[in-house]
Amino acid sequence: MISREVQLVAVPDGSVRAESFGVFETEVDAPGDQQVLVELRRLGLNAGLAHRLGGEGTAYGPGIGVGDVPSSDAVVEVLESAAEGFAPGDLAVAKVPWCTAAVVDADQLRRIDRATPEQDLEAYLTVLGHVGFTAYTGLIHIGEVRPEDIVCVSGAAGGVGSCVVQFAKARGASVIGVAGSAEKVALLTDVLGADRAINRHDGPAAELLRDASPDGIDLYYDNVGGEQLDAALEVLNARGRIVICGAVAAGSGGPSNYRRMIYQELSMRGFTVTAHEDLRAQFESEVGGWLREGAVRSLHTVFDGIDRVPEAFASLLAGGSSGRVIVAVDGPR
Amino acid sequence: MISREVQLVAVPDGSVRAESFGVFETEVDAPGDQQVLVELRRLGLNAGLAHRLGGEGTAYGPGIGVGDVPSSDAVVEVLESAAEGFAPGDLAVAKVPWCTAAVVDADQLRRIDRATPEQDLEAYLTVLGHVGFTAYTGLIHIGEVRPEDIVCVSGAAGGVGSCVVQFAKARGASVIGVAGSAEKVALLTDVLGADRAINRHDGPAAELLRDASPDGIDLYYDNVGGEQLDAALEVLNARGRIVICGAVAAGSGGPSNYRRMIYQELSMRGFTVTAHEDLRAQFESEVGGWLREGAVRSLHTVFDGIDRVPEAFASLLAGGSSGRVIVAVDGPR
Repeated sequence: MISREVQLVAVPDGSVRAESFGVFETEVDAPGDQQVLVELRRLGLNAGLAHRLGGEGTAYGPGIGVGDVPSSDAVVEVLESAAEGFAPGDLAVAKVPWCTAAVVDADQLRRIDRATPEQDLEAYLTVLGHVGFTAYTGLIHIGEVRPEDIVCVSGAAGGVGSCVVQFAKARGASVIGVAGSAEKVALLTDVLGADRAINRHDGPAAELLRDASPDGIDLYYDNVGGEQLDAALEVLNARGRIVICGAVAAGSGGPSNYRRMIYQELSMRGFTVTAHEDLRAQFESEVGGWLREGAVRSLHTVFDGIDRVPEAFASLLAGGSSGRVIVAVDGPR
Repeated sequence: MISREVQLVAVPDGSVRAESFGVFETEVDAPGDQQVLVELRRLGLNAGLAHRLGGEGTAYGPGIGVGDVPSSDAVVEVLESAAEGFAPGDLAVAKVPWCTAAVVDADQLRRIDRATPEQDLEAYLTVLGHVGFTAYTGLIHIGEVRPEDIVCVSGAAGGVGSCVVQFAKARGASVIGVAGSAEKVALLTDVLGADRAINRHDGPAAELLRDASPDGIDLYYDNVGGEQLDAALEVLNARGRIVICGAVAAGSGGPSNYRRMIYQELSMRGFTVTAHEDLRAQFESEVGGWLREGAVRSLHTVFDGIDRVPEAFASLLAGGSSGRVIVAVDGPR
């Protein structure tokens, strides 16, 4: 069958624009043994791809040259199966090329409920997807969040952070979010339900956190490291817990005031979500419930049709969209 | 009654010598309400006192001027009691002045078995004392040591470290001790039972640790911080644990490579022993048992008689004694 795919046609010189990409037809083979032919339903875009365009690649994948098709995570529907356990109409999440249809090894698919309603598909790329599972694992399993906790989340308006904020609220905790702009602060309190939000550009991190939470904090979910981690170490209450999820802002040094871990009996735990697949069923059940109740929402902007992938990606990089940028590959049904 | 006490008679100019102290007689009053009159049986000396002689004091106590009597922890015997629950002949541990007899508030005494044999009294200032309880709490309660663990201990020949090494062995774990001289390395392997020992002056910390433990480590008991903590973070196996007990060598920075906590799912916990008094009975029972079996030994050097306190203290500071320096205040019985 014919698939339409998105190729890099020119390495961007400066900012990425829609014109850097083109959409082309290509022939897709029938699936081989233990493979399936899938149609893409929803494609999630990742800003991190921009660093790989024409470059050397990053920890997340190889460089992407002219003529290459980037890959992202997507919700797919099985059209034809040569793999045991998969049948036409099955829905799954997988990392696939930016296209309308592709052949995928069946062991790369993570099945989701085939009765998922159309309007809930996006959630599998947000709150029920990788970022949601990361947030859930760190918050519930590693951080052992309790209803009486005051939780602080850094990078709170980001992919993982926005899930942590919502999940902590859904579990009954008080939540303080830290983000990098007034718009994000408004999103945190007005849309995501944070009790308080901090714009980290408003002053020294520890001072802002103490002002926002005079009773201290009990659990700190760290997506960034650096100054925010140092501030949390200052403000955490006795026996407080730190979950280390990310450290992009940590620079070359570690938390300089980690000695306070001794006097306040603090704990700090890192985790890697891929080691916790055993939590998947509990995660989908609990977060799925919150989603149906409206306690949690998927934050995303949808662009319709494979032809709009270039525009959607440029919009993502320009910061012009709120929540995750998702393309409804086949348009609305 | 008459007590003989040790006073500072001259602020040391340079190194502390026995002549900096003198022994004087003083009258002790009868105990007031809720007080007891105690006789000192064993007095433990602390090198840290040296920093307070003639000075401003430290976190551990005020400065000590000419005419002042320093205080340390000691095993005492009750001679006369005006406090409910204490009777003559009772034994206890308390922080008391350097003297032969003193009046102490009863709530400052921690009772020990009054049938403790003479030869076991020193242990209440070492493996059954504060350093032992600190080692035990960190290793067993915070670090949750298991028989299959490879345990690394920094500052392993020190007061706390030497207990950690012995307790970890007694619990069935493999133990690697890190210390600062060839003599200490020999003590660790030949006397304390460490499986391997590292002289930290022999090379880069992470290299030495990898060489000593090709299978990595599972639990790191940190008494020092700095380079040793960084090395442990490099060498810890997946889901390894770090117990933060001390950070004297940490300088102004924290562990620069704490990101490895994410990829290896490491945890780090600080603790303060005073928050764990509920473990005291379990500690005394288990470590007392090890001591009777000979699985654990008290490392100390005993000087006989209150008159030898100045000499004992000078010897401690000159590094001329092994294990804790203890004075048998009344001489051997």
